[in-house]
Amino acid sequence: MTDSIGQLRERMAALMDLRTINQLLEWDQQTMMPPRGVQTRAESLATLQRIRHEMFVSDDVGQLLDAADAEINGQGPDSDDAALIRVTRRRWEKARRVPSHLAAELARASSVGQKEWVTARANSDFASFIPNLERNYELARRYVDCFDGYECAYDVLLDDYEPGMKTTEVAALFSELKSELTPMIAAITAHADRVDDSVLHGSFPIDRQRALTLEVIERMGFDRAAWRIDDAVHPFASGLGSQDVRITTRWEESYFASSLYGSMHECGHGLYEAGVDKKLQRTPLGFGESLALHESQSRMWENMVGRSRQFCNVLAPTVARIFGGASADLNQDTLYRAVNKISPSFIRVEADELTYGLHIVLRFELEQELIEGRLKVADLPEAWNARFKEYFGLDVPDDAHGVLQDVHWASGLVGYFPTYALGNLIAGQLWRQAHVDLPDLDDQLEAGELAGLREWLRENVHRYGSKYSSRELLQRVVGGPIEVAPFVAYVKHKLGAVYELDF
Amino acid sequence: MTDSIGQLRERMAALMDLRTINQLLEWDQQTMMPPRGVQTRAESLATLQRIRHEMFVSDDVGQLLDAADAEINGQGPDSDDAALIRVTRRRWEKARRVPSHLAAELARASSVGQKEWVTARANSDFASFIPNLERNYELARRYVDCFDGYECAYDVLLDDYEPGMKTTEVAALFSELKSELTPMIAAITAHADRVDDSVLHGSFPIDRQRALTLEVIERMGFDRAAWRIDDAVHPFASGLGSQDVRITTRWEESYFASSLYGSMHECGHGLYEAGVDKKLQRTPLGFGESLALHESQSRMWENMVGRSRQFCNVLAPTVARIFGGASADLNQDTLYRAVNKISPSFIRVEADELTYGLHIVLRFELEQELIEGRLKVADLPEAWNARFKEYFGLDVPDDAHGVLQDVHWASGLVGYFPTYALGNLIAGQLWRQAHVDLPDLDDQLEAGELAGLREWLRENVHRYGSKYSSRELLQRVVGGPIEVAPFVAYVKHKLGAVYELDF
Repeated sequence: MTDSIGQLRERMAALMDLRTINQLLEWDQQTMMPPRGVQTRAESLATLQRIRHEMFVSDDVGQLLDAADAEINGQGPDSDDAALIRVTRRRWEKARRVPSHLAAELARASSVGQKEWVTARANSDFASFIPNLERNYELARRYVDCFDGYECAYDVLLDDYEPGMKTTEVAALFSELKSELTPMIAAITAHADRVDDSVLHGSFPIDRQRALTLEVIERMGFDRAAWRIDDAVHPFASGLGSQDVRITTRWEESYFASSLYGSMHECGHGLYEAGVDKKLQRTPLGFGESLALHESQSRMWENMVGRSRQFCNVLAPTVARIFGGASADLNQDTLYRAVNKISPSFIRVEADELTYGLHIVLRFELEQELIEGRLKVADLPEAWNARFKEYFGLDVPDDAHGVLQDVHWASGLVGYFPTYALGNLIAGQLWRQAHVDLPDLDDQLEAGELAGLREWLRENVHRYGSKYSSRELLQRVVGGPIEVAPFVAYVKHKLGAVYELDF
Repeated sequence: MTDSIGQLRERMAALMDLRTINQLLEWDQQTMMPPRGVQTRAESLATLQRIRHEMFVSDDVGQLLDAADAEINGQGPDSDDAALIRVTRRRWEKARRVPSHLAAELARASSVGQKEWVTARANSDFASFIPNLERNYELARRYVDCFDGYECAYDVLLDDYEPGMKTTEVAALFSELKSELTPMIAAITAHADRVDDSVLHGSFPIDRQRALTLEVIERMGFDRAAWRIDDAVHPFASGLGSQDVRITTRWEESYFASSLYGSMHECGHGLYEAGVDKKLQRTPLGFGESLALHESQSRMWENMVGRSRQFCNVLAPTVARIFGGASADLNQDTLYRAVNKISPSFIRVEADELTYGLHIVLRFELEQELIEGRLKVADLPEAWNARFKEYFGLDVPDDAHGVLQDVHWASGLVGYFPTYALGNLIAGQLWRQAHVDLPDLDDQLEAGELAGLREWLRENVHRYGSKYSSRELLQRVVGGPIEVAPFVAYVKHKLGAVYELDF
């Protein structure tokens, strides 16, 4: 009798090691690598990608999957073995469609594109970046062409970031979300003077911002023995296994909320990776695959915890103590109102909780048009700026504040953006459920105790890694699919009070 | 007609990419990785090592080597293609002797050993470290057992770090070196009061030490666009291709010479990697393979340049300007004498230029005894301390200042140490030749101009990467084999003057 499931696990463990190595190469590229290292790094990533691809798509893996499937016959779909086979087979069937040389080209173009983007963004120079972006969209189309049987090209890309999700589902959710957000934003914009966030602006030395950020994320679960925090142009989180979690942030001397909430966001991602069950480590289930679920974690910590009236009870005196001076008298209510100021603005990652969704809808629409060839890369800034004016009523001053602001397209990540807004929706659902399961959650937050929520999330979300899709996991935890209503109810409740508006 | 040499180059390029990736994993482990990441890192390194090993030792590579050899028939041994085939075949034949599982075990034990060593060294706790060290020596013996036809077991290990070198050759050179050093050290120790190095000791803020170090290594060729310098417990240099060179150092607040000369040393290694010919990048010749040649570079920059009377003409005012205070009046002669103080001491990496060789001889002797089973790991501290007393006249106070001071054995690097002293000898030979070829070299150093020497080294050493063994390269540059005499003449000339002794 053969131990096929054991062999499958061993094969996958090596592939997971290579995935971890890939994470390190990308983390290093964005935090540590000297600029002229870019060419060598692109070659390293391309070779690694090719080897991972070849090891994974081999016929052997298919035979192991079949044999392991037969071997575990009788284990229910919730067993780790069954989930491992199910998830691995789905990825294997998808990966086999993509030729090695295309996978390597995608990796190389991503690496070069990221580096070029840093310069293009710094100079707000879209023209010089057109060839990179055209290349990335051409490669994305060639990637889509590897598949068949999809409703629309975008489905293929979206599925890489949110397994099983369809473009039509997202379009329906976003349509509902947009119709809810638009009148709220209009009402709030008409009463913009009701919230003053001047306490967040001033002069905040970076070393004190570092101290503030560390103090807050250590409450969340950041552990110096197993985590790092570094600087990056475009902040991100990376899990090299559950015992080596790396988050990044950027600092703004005149506005401490940027790094503080950015770091809480990335720490939320990190907690997901750190919380995956030990027995799933080095398996294909050992990390959070659904980016919408991942984003539900980061945005819950950033917004629902970090911008709650309750947590401001602890945050305000911390800010006052660390910065002193003009901040010395900061109180809970002043901070709470300031960090919930709603104001249409140019940069997605600095957008408030309400307008954020519209930034995503805009990108979702544009990347569908680009991938279907209805929009040319060269015409992208014009399209971006026109739509931005329509949604936000603002004139984009330059491409660094417009189409060049995000690294995603530069890295070849098309179909990724929707997961951010889906994450908000899921966060709304989980947040409601957490309050049902933890009746004293608000009191805990008021006392600055974050362990209760973290453990609830670990128990209900993190520990499963990729075992369940976002659809399956939501069914288990809240008993239904993704919905818009809980998130909308949450923002209406909070912002209605802050702005004294009757939503 | 097939392009076998092209296919061989392509195959090797992928393997060189994996080598670069390995360099990054090890650099990160020693500079950035959170402590609890050690287990995952060990798994990553073991898997990477296994894949590299399997890709390299395949029969295909042998067939490509044969076909390429036939294809380039007629190209002289100095052609890049001939050298590539020659060097690759030598490594391939050696690597095929080692089973994959042993290669993976070596990598895993190295990774775990390094991490355990940090703790053991911090606590001066040899007992807790015995199992790791026994494991490493057991694995080294199993590695030796993969080979046959060697004169002594140590030959097999030495050859990994210094291709083609034999234990008997090293023993003969070291015997001559020891007989030269011992009376010089005795004479100088009897007149220890003739040199005062108190100007090097005091309070030197780390940020100013960083400024001093950067200013000096930028003169050498450190380029912020292509290099990094970071902190590490055990400083090292790593080349991720010629455009991404990473050196490390450690800082001692009370003694600025430690990081200054340590950084010059590592920068010397880095210049070798940065200087390899572009056309050799991503080939098996694209890095410096002979560790003795590598060390000749680092020690030439550290000692022959950095501790020369000439360079102290620029160094002294730089130190004076940066530290001010008690250092404000530092002059060339005072600094020159201070940095050439000879004094037997415990730590190899802080040893002076003269006693350094004896540190190596001691290790060379002990590791031969360990590998041949004449000495047990558990008895190592006693043997170390007894021999240290014999050679240096000093009682080792604890294992952190004795047998635990170096990371090499913890990493499984047995047979590596001799290359350090061989490097000194080669440096002596190259230094003499550089003065022949560059008659105004002393004037350049006096003016702080280091580019002339760097370009001479690039032209004569660096650009060849691994194309020539140390024996072949010395034959080309100085017309003969490794010799002790030039190094001894150099130290006698310098230290005779400093100590007013007639050597």
